[in-house]
Amino acid sequence: MFVPAIKGQGTDEQQQKWLPLAHRMQIIGCYAQTELGHGSNVQGLETTATFDPQTDEFVIHSPTLTSSKWWPGGLGKVSTHAVVYARLITDGQEHGVHGFIVQLRSLDDHMPLPGITIGDIGMKFGNGAYNTMDNGVLRFDNVRIPRDQMLMRVLQVTKEGKCVQSNVPRQLIYGTMVYVRQTIVADASRALSRAVCIATRYSAVRRQFGSQNGLETQVIDYKTQQSRLFPLIASAYAFRFVGEWLKWLYTDVTQRLQANDFSTLPEAHACTAGLKSLTTSVTADAIEECRKLCGGHGYLCSSGLPELFAVYVPACTYEGDNVVLLLQVARFLMKTVAQLPSGKKPVGTTAYLGLVEHLMQYRCGVQNAEDWLNPSVILEVFEARAARMCVNRAQKLGSFPNPDEGFAELSAFLAEAAVAHCQLIVVSKFIEKLQQDIPGGEGVKQQLRNLCNIYALNLINRHLGDFLSTGAISAKQASLANDQLRSLFSQVRPNAIALVDAFNYTDHYLGSILGCYDGNVYPKLYEEAWKDPLNDSVVPDGYQEYIRPMLKQQLRNARL
Amino acid sequence: MFVPAIKGQGTDEQQQKWLPLAHRMQIIGCYAQTELGHGSNVQGLETTATFDPQTDEFVIHSPTLTSSKWWPGGLGKVSTHAVVYARLITDGQEHGVHGFIVQLRSLDDHMPLPGITIGDIGMKFGNGAYNTMDNGVLRFDNVRIPRDQMLMRVLQVTKEGKCVQSNVPRQLIYGTMVYVRQTIVADASRALSRAVCIATRYSAVRRQFGSQNGLETQVIDYKTQQSRLFPLIASAYAFRFVGEWLKWLYTDVTQRLQANDFSTLPEAHACTAGLKSLTTSVTADAIEECRKLCGGHGYLCSSGLPELFAVYVPACTYEGDNVVLLLQVARFLMKTVAQLPSGKKPVGTTAYLGLVEHLMQYRCGVQNAEDWLNPSVILEVFEARAARMCVNRAQKLGSFPNPDEGFAELSAFLAEAAVAHCQLIVVSKFIEKLQQDIPGGEGVKQQLRNLCNIYALNLINRHLGDFLSTGAISAKQASLANDQLRSLFSQVRPNAIALVDAFNYTDHYLGSILGCYDGNVYPKLYEEAWKDPLNDSVVPDGYQEYIRPMLKQQLRNARL
Repeated sequence: MFVPAIKGQGTDEQQQKWLPLAHRMQIIGCYAQTELGHGSNVQGLETTATFDPQTDEFVIHSPTLTSSKWWPGGLGKVSTHAVVYARLITDGQEHGVHGFIVQLRSLDDHMPLPGITIGDIGMKFGNGAYNTMDNGVLRFDNVRIPRDQMLMRVLQVTKEGKCVQSNVPRQLIYGTMVYVRQTIVADASRALSRAVCIATRYSAVRRQFGSQNGLETQVIDYKTQQSRLFPLIASAYAFRFVGEWLKWLYTDVTQRLQANDFSTLPEAHACTAGLKSLTTSVTADAIEECRKLCGGHGYLCSSGLPELFAVYVPACTYEGDNVVLLLQVARFLMKTVAQLPSGKKPVGTTAYLGLVEHLMQYRCGVQNAEDWLNPSVILEVFEARAARMCVNRAQKLGSFPNPDEGFAELSAFLAEAAVAHCQLIVVSKFIEKLQQDIPGGEGVKQQLRNLCNIYALNLINRHLGDFLSTGAISAKQASLANDQLRSLFSQVRPNAIALVDAFNYTDHYLGSILGCYDGNVYPKLYEEAWKDPLNDSVVPDGYQEYIRPMLKQQLRNARL
Repeated sequence: MFVPAIKGQGTDEQQQKWLPLAHRMQIIGCYAQTELGHGSNVQGLETTATFDPQTDEFVIHSPTLTSSKWWPGGLGKVSTHAVVYARLITDGQEHGVHGFIVQLRSLDDHMPLPGITIGDIGMKFGNGAYNTMDNGVLRFDNVRIPRDQMLMRVLQVTKEGKCVQSNVPRQLIYGTMVYVRQTIVADASRALSRAVCIATRYSAVRRQFGSQNGLETQVIDYKTQQSRLFPLIASAYAFRFVGEWLKWLYTDVTQRLQANDFSTLPEAHACTAGLKSLTTSVTADAIEECRKLCGGHGYLCSSGLPELFAVYVPACTYEGDNVVLLLQVARFLMKTVAQLPSGKKPVGTTAYLGLVEHLMQYRCGVQNAEDWLNPSVILEVFEARAARMCVNRAQKLGSFPNPDEGFAELSAFLAEAAVAHCQLIVVSKFIEKLQQDIPGGEGVKQQLRNLCNIYALNLINRHLGDFLSTGAISAKQASLANDQLRSLFSQVRPNAIALVDAFNYTDHYLGSILGCYDGNVYPKLYEEAWKDPLNDSVVPDGYQEYIRPMLKQQLRNARL
């Protein structure tokens, strides 16, 4: 039963530390940040925590309807305590948003404590999905808590109500965000690989049209199927590798923070924010695409895909809305470009912007389809596209007298540059991975190389407008990329099943009849249908009340 | 209770005529075509109808597991009769797939008749959606029906078992397909306009970040929100107008068929197939995009969007899988291009291909952003792009010694040309609409003109690779199109709410708290939450069995 609290919306370094403590204290906690009227903008939260020096207590209060806490996972029916984020007020002055530990329910009978209103916020997307989680609503009517239940690592409130800033660097919070977002990227890879495993296996089972030896053609042999499916297999691998790299990045950031080195933090933060946005958006769309690739049967719950979609899509919104995150990346990129003339060297994943003069001059040398198999060509083309988009956006921004207004006006346009930058990161980490030793030897490596090329060339195809309008490649070269892509599909086809089997998911974990390992889809679908409670009776409940009167045209008797 | 049968999967002219008859006969019918192993490829159906001249009966049989009828709506628990599609066999010879009226259940007690197995196929996507429909499975074990229960309009089977082709033209079936797909396009416009109405109204209610007069900024004022939302409002209008035009097309086709004029049928068929594919794919994605545009609250069922999505997405698969349909369009386009040298004039929506020489030479004259407001410029740019993509694909096809192999190899690439052609149709019908009188006068017309331009310029932006690689426009002109698009967003902003109010949907029909007409979103969300059955008790069911033992660390006593 701890799961709801741990999977609760929003996460914070303090929550990480607090949960084991909660366990020892025999309480169940959740993280209450989001409000009915406030999500992305944490500084806009309305709940107040007003210090009363006379009693040495904070008064937690919900002053408006929109200040009601809304969404925290595990809150609605289960949690006994919460970390509540509220505006700190001492001596009539505001001091920003901070966390407070508040007991919500009695530990004797689980009843809400006086002044506290709690409930579940109702049904959500899907059959099961997050409907197994009691996302909750919570209101406070002047609830008093002792002063020491404020989380005071960054700011301390004294008995007298004075605020004392600690010397703990505020940047530490970014370390936690890097951690959480890195796990989200790993989750994206996992969800995507589940979906493609199902769609790939079923595409080898399903036959439609055509005729070879009397049998219809396996749908996986259609180029239309391959061109939608194989780039998703490639993306699942790409996200896995970039996820592994992010794990390293988090370790690196942590070590630097411990040594009070904050120099790489803005870049690491932008990078993880961008990759969270990119991988979750792609994965959400890809799960639905995999469902469609399974045709009609993908619409059955027994395919596993509808619930995988419903449970996955919130990842595009929680822990930073994907569009808001892209704008953070864009802002960082614009700052990086603006600082280039001063000689400040971009670090980490933005290092290529240091070579912007070279990249603006760059001309892609591809002359035939095979040239596209060269990883350094791919890397430079992606670098040239991203760098030119950044420079182009920076120039456009420069034409606005007010930079903030310019940023707002061009925001959709800036988000495109952020996407280009993030795609470059994924491509470059895939290429780096292939420069290392791979267990399984050259044969395995060649398959991964094919997937890496499919990942990159498919992006060129999908974002062709970027590549052509920046002049990173020519129309002729784009056409050659397309030819090479088709040839790669043919090379991947014989190994497609092995490539998804390699994820090593059990049938139980996949939870999909269409994706079952033995491919015995039709008997299992047929068997599963009969388990539906509607089939417990041959003549359905309601026949006498509804169907029979209609058939006998005694509609006056029917309960319609 | 007739709804399941009428909304059943697959439709046929005969079903249209048969349903009223069924009503008078006091039966409930469904349309049983799709099988467990066979969907798109009707000729691959396995159910057999073998004529027995000795008894003047057909024997309906399911010879394999994959021949089980699967998906028909209304079949599982309700229907008493079905039109069953099966391979006709007389005298040991196959004569293609035909329809047979088969009684499934007793009219006395609703029990399945001997030799017939029927059930529901189980849960589907979403909470409600199609789970209110008894999509069914059906198997026949040598079920005998009288000869006159075969639908014999096209082919007659005599008492002796001879097959006699009627003089009814086979093309008539295409007339029905034009009809059905035209209604699907109208449905797409309706579903899309519901989703954008919800997302637009909520975007005006929701505030986040920024600060004007103490209030945060309405999210509809963000360019990122506008650039995702406003093109969808434009699409809702575009699909409505092209839907109206398709209604005219169906009337025209019907009149011609009655006069035995089949000349426009292939073009009309390709056009409706393509528009079915385009509008349903866009609408399915758009509903989910609208959900994301509502942030976290879009994930609540009370937003109406999760169920709208779950109930809508099958439209991408039924009545012709969208990819299969695009390939039909592509095949028609390739044929049209191949016949150009012979002087055969393309008709209807392909007439522009008759001007292919001009379109290959065309140079877009746009020099500043306002030039993009000229409808003839937009039309020619879309014509040039589609024509050049068609010619380019035709040339590539020509390099294959075997045309069928070439078509298979290039199919994904050919589908892109079909999309370009269909988008041209939608743009051109929008422009035609604006050349007519519009109720409401010039003010209304100007708003619609803005939407038409947004629809077209957004497509240029999204498919920029097509427009640049065909040379239909230059990178500089693309950038001007983008500038013009942003300016159009600003012009639409003050009228955005009016434009969705104009759909005139009641709150009851919209079924969305986020989209309610009075904008009183937060109190209604709060109120709705308390209606959830989980909130009937303050201390949840299961507290004693699960939660309390865990809190008291008496896990051995917990029922976990």
